[in-house]
Amino acid sequence: MSVSTLPKFSPLTGAIRALAMDAVQQANSGHPGAPMGMAEIAEVLWRRHLRHNPANPEWADRDRFVLSNGHGSMLIYSLLHLTGYDVSIADLKNFRQLHAKTPGHPEYGYTPGIETTTGPLGQGITNAVGFALAEKVLAAEFNKPGHTIVDHNTYVFLGDGCLMEGVSHEACSLAGTLGLGKLIAFWDDNRISIDGHVEGWFTDHTPGRFESYGWHVIANVDGHDAEAVEQALLAAKAVTDKPSLICCKTTIGAGAPNKQGSHDCHGAPLGKDEIAAAREYIGWEHAPFEIPADVYAAWDRKADGAAAEGDWNTRFAAYRAAFPAEAAEFERRVINGKLPANWEATKAAYVGACREKAENIATRKASQNAIAALVPAVPEIFGGSADLAGSNLTFVKGSKGVTRTEGGNYCYYGVREFGMTAIANGIALHGGLLPYTATFLVFSDYARNGIRMAALMKQRQIMVYTHDSIGLGEDGPTHQPVEHIPSLRIIPNLDVWRPADATETAIAWISAVERSDGPSVLALSRQNLPTVTQKIADADIAKGGYVLSEADGEAQVTLIATGSEVKLALDAQAALAGEGIKARVVSMPCTNVFDRQSADYKAAVLGGCKKRIAIEAAHSDFWRKYVGLHGAVVGIDRFGESAPAGQLFELFGFTVANVVSTAKALLS
Amino acid sequence: MSVSTLPKFSPLTGAIRALAMDAVQQANSGHPGAPMGMAEIAEVLWRRHLRHNPANPEWADRDRFVLSNGHGSMLIYSLLHLTGYDVSIADLKNFRQLHAKTPGHPEYGYTPGIETTTGPLGQGITNAVGFALAEKVLAAEFNKPGHTIVDHNTYVFLGDGCLMEGVSHEACSLAGTLGLGKLIAFWDDNRISIDGHVEGWFTDHTPGRFESYGWHVIANVDGHDAEAVEQALLAAKAVTDKPSLICCKTTIGAGAPNKQGSHDCHGAPLGKDEIAAAREYIGWEHAPFEIPADVYAAWDRKADGAAAEGDWNTRFAAYRAAFPAEAAEFERRVINGKLPANWEATKAAYVGACREKAENIATRKASQNAIAALVPAVPEIFGGSADLAGSNLTFVKGSKGVTRTEGGNYCYYGVREFGMTAIANGIALHGGLLPYTATFLVFSDYARNGIRMAALMKQRQIMVYTHDSIGLGEDGPTHQPVEHIPSLRIIPNLDVWRPADATETAIAWISAVERSDGPSVLALSRQNLPTVTQKIADADIAKGGYVLSEADGEAQVTLIATGSEVKLALDAQAALAGEGIKARVVSMPCTNVFDRQSADYKAAVLGGCKKRIAIEAAHSDFWRKYVGLHGAVVGIDRFGESAPAGQLFELFGFTVANVVSTAKALLS
Repeated sequence: MSVSTLPKFSPLTGAIRALAMDAVQQANSGHPGAPMGMAEIAEVLWRRHLRHNPANPEWADRDRFVLSNGHGSMLIYSLLHLTGYDVSIADLKNFRQLHAKTPGHPEYGYTPGIETTTGPLGQGITNAVGFALAEKVLAAEFNKPGHTIVDHNTYVFLGDGCLMEGVSHEACSLAGTLGLGKLIAFWDDNRISIDGHVEGWFTDHTPGRFESYGWHVIANVDGHDAEAVEQALLAAKAVTDKPSLICCKTTIGAGAPNKQGSHDCHGAPLGKDEIAAAREYIGWEHAPFEIPADVYAAWDRKADGAAAEGDWNTRFAAYRAAFPAEAAEFERRVINGKLPANWEATKAAYVGACREKAENIATRKASQNAIAALVPAVPEIFGGSADLAGSNLTFVKGSKGVTRTEGGNYCYYGVREFGMTAIANGIALHGGLLPYTATFLVFSDYARNGIRMAALMKQRQIMVYTHDSIGLGEDGPTHQPVEHIPSLRIIPNLDVWRPADATETAIAWISAVERSDGPSVLALSRQNLPTVTQKIADADIAKGGYVLSEADGEAQVTLIATGSEVKLALDAQAALAGEGIKARVVSMPCTNVFDRQSADYKAAVLGGCKKRIAIEAAHSDFWRKYVGLHGAVVGIDRFGESAPAGQLFELFGFTVANVVSTAKALLS
Repeated sequence: MSVSTLPKFSPLTGAIRALAMDAVQQANSGHPGAPMGMAEIAEVLWRRHLRHNPANPEWADRDRFVLSNGHGSMLIYSLLHLTGYDVSIADLKNFRQLHAKTPGHPEYGYTPGIETTTGPLGQGITNAVGFALAEKVLAAEFNKPGHTIVDHNTYVFLGDGCLMEGVSHEACSLAGTLGLGKLIAFWDDNRISIDGHVEGWFTDHTPGRFESYGWHVIANVDGHDAEAVEQALLAAKAVTDKPSLICCKTTIGAGAPNKQGSHDCHGAPLGKDEIAAAREYIGWEHAPFEIPADVYAAWDRKADGAAAEGDWNTRFAAYRAAFPAEAAEFERRVINGKLPANWEATKAAYVGACREKAENIATRKASQNAIAALVPAVPEIFGGSADLAGSNLTFVKGSKGVTRTEGGNYCYYGVREFGMTAIANGIALHGGLLPYTATFLVFSDYARNGIRMAALMKQRQIMVYTHDSIGLGEDGPTHQPVEHIPSLRIIPNLDVWRPADATETAIAWISAVERSDGPSVLALSRQNLPTVTQKIADADIAKGGYVLSEADGEAQVTLIATGSEVKLALDAQAALAGEGIKARVVSMPCTNVFDRQSADYKAAVLGGCKKRIAIEAAHSDFWRKYVGLHGAVVGIDRFGESAPAGQLFELFGFTVANVVSTAKALLS
């Protein structure tokens, strides 16, 4: 046991410790160690500094708080309860029960005051970088001399686990480069992770690491000494051109006399005996879930919060008087999260222009055209790429990169796919900005859990993933996605678009912008694709799947294709017609959206005929849900090769001849 | 253009520059910048220090070299050609062409002398940590006083991109903790990434960062000054208790007079005019792909290599004389990569014991029992977990953690899922060890591209992924895999097992150990599962899918289940029988292995009856490949919830009643 320091136990922190250990015990599951170890830090931040209004968790200029070590969820639930949010003792008693407001890890949307879902380590601090970046960008855009309406801090608690995860490197490195001075992180330096004392696997000199990122580091703070924490926090707030890391030495589970300082109290209930001993040890005489009135009174932030928001409302009224247009824009974007009033006209104009040009271009290029058209009309669009702007085609004439000293509408994320994605989740959660991110489709692997978190939190992030198949050619199998499109389609609440031409790309972009309850992936080609949708209504494309070309008479076979394989399906249809076989072609740019259409519509598109062939340069298994066991799939179930793209499509059977012979075999 | 220094151009480096720019030009695709910028560093390392034998790329005690910035593949192809490997001028002319020995990125297995596949940034340096860790472990195990048979360095080239990727943090942090002194990395500090000059997105003080990891850092080396590089390398080799980072300031594309120092030469051919200008600038008068004899002679390492290996052979003969058993073991494991002679007996004994006990335990516990049984008999098994030893149950009585000063057969990887997986790829590639790794199944997301790389490189890594469904309960949706099992099954060349009981778990472990051409995932339950395989032969389980329980008479419906849902299928079969409906039950622990069985076997298992119901607590789409459009799937196509597991299985329809009603609906 390595108890470095122990707190002066007070009733204020006693309330946190008691609620945490009692709720975990009642649930017979959970993590008491972090809440008990961080109680003093939490008291200083939440009771003395955090600018928030428990009665209105949506107040636009509130400070943001992220519990990156999300397993310590009883810490934040206790804080929300004690400071006056709509989280009751009954909710705390219901910890980790079905449909409770207090799930095992903090879940965005379940509990007032929870800013982001945490638990997957490293992503909380990364979301927090996104919050701070959004604040910086919106402050640069909306604040005016004498009128500061965007001015809030982002606070994070994080543990050793977050610091070990690679994504913390990506996010904190970029935060240093961008000088996100309103980001303040508290490291719970308790030297314990699940496997035990971290000396055997984690010996970073963390202050040095963060100094190398350009952070303001406050080392050697006694995390159980409230005054020391207070002084460190004041010092952190005083430095506004660098993010701050406050390194707090703590004892995990502090207050549990026999288990503190050991991983035994990390992730399991303390047990009745230890809880009784802890009650005595910390001088907490109250029954489980009972908090005396004076402790409640000392914790209550409702009056302060109302005053803080009231002050901001007064200042915003003055802003509105001086800058009515900017104030209206702020209300639309940041407070109400609505698209611009001229959105319908914007999208109609863009799709119209796109159809008129009917260019034969790569869908990545079509995506760039869409971005260029949408950015001026939808200023909340905030772009970026993981060091592939020129390949993903994500930077447009209206793009301006954020720098250390200036705002903008584009982030050069560097080679940081996971960090980018989780930062963009923070940006989306903050409000006021609509982030798109970009990399090669194959490297969506690096970001995969961040994609999942966007879907789980129902956040609008548009993921521009180019080089979507073997069609990228010479870079070879490490760069050629095979399993990625189908494996993304099955992440719940994620829409995956693979458009066939510029118009389908435009509709995909519009659908992704309009979708307010989840993220969208756009899987785009490196190579040029011909226009195929001249005769198709926008509304049909927007359904995710539609009949692109009917057969001349009753069809014998339906060819279903996506993206670069749609033109192949059309060519195969023509070749089959030459051999007297009637085929129809379905374009299916987004199976997820298609699946949400009516049963009648879906049946009509898929066709009455039972013989179906799916054609997609990706793993074939997925398509059995549409073609069944009696259909066929022209797909690719192995890794690709390094060679010019044309040769690869030939090698893997994406040819008219192969589709024709597949159809004949199916019909014979 | 920020050309900090320029080399004294010599014919030795001229050969590299010319081959790189000419091959990229011929392919009309590729990356000349890194090979031209690192030519001097490469000359010092490969011509003067690297201990290798071009005639035998498999020599067990060779130094390992990893090009972590794999897009610079023409650098290593040039080096392999010039030093005498079986890589010809014809191969170089064939750069990036179908089935060439010289694919776009270095691919393990395609080219003699390529130790690992690189291109996905950050993973090369991480593989290299694995190589160095394997060397340390094997040296500790096999070297004897006076007999050093394992003693080689691992060298890495890496660029800014690798340093930005989070996985480099995970790997380099752990390398510092473990004191991997034979790992020497050269940072190509050219300040350029694809988006341009890195100042806007990458301002880490990298020497400080690596010092905080406990590395020996040699800063401010002029990467174009061969003597400076030589001195730095000597200094790095002299420090044996810490990994070394040599920070080399270079000019990207050095030698291309108009493009050097700019991202214009990073990833595109220089063009004929610039190549002509470069020839003049660097004083290289030879035609494309022509190297003068004296340059070849100066580069040739065949004689040195033969001598070095010959010396080692002599020393190994002495070792064999003194330690015949150890030498035989070294030959079996490190040189030949064979399982122990008593393997068949070991596995039979273990499965026999397992069947005899017939314990109702979680499959994660059954996995721990398997590890405990196999480790003593198969000493090359090398374990680890990403800080979840007590949850994944990966640490057994015979496990010994590697420390800074000692070897072992287990690595405490810390909370570093991606780093762990890519380090284990390096361990597998090194030879002599059989790595297993572990985390919660949901966090396979973090490691996903490392899993893919294991599959692409055909490396044996056993991935123990526990907490495989909503059955983990209270930790909630962030920790509950839904899409993971199906999304892993479609990674080419990956076998995914989800065993139903302890015996299926034993067979899965055995199959994974015996599989010499690819990785295996074991998806394991947190909760206890009853024994269901009492009457089933080992050989049937090993086929990946088999009839667990026939119907009493001709079946009307086949129930196909995996893992924790197999018992549910059996219970549903009994309930259906009670209602006069004849059902048969198929257990399908590994669809990938099942798919490789004969068509007759598969048809027999799936059953003649057309009505099939798949039952698995995971996304349902995947199962359409077995049940078709006329079957049904009891799955889960949304995110989970935080609640006790029993309530969740009920909520999501994993109940006898729901399976029975699904069957009735299907049959009506």
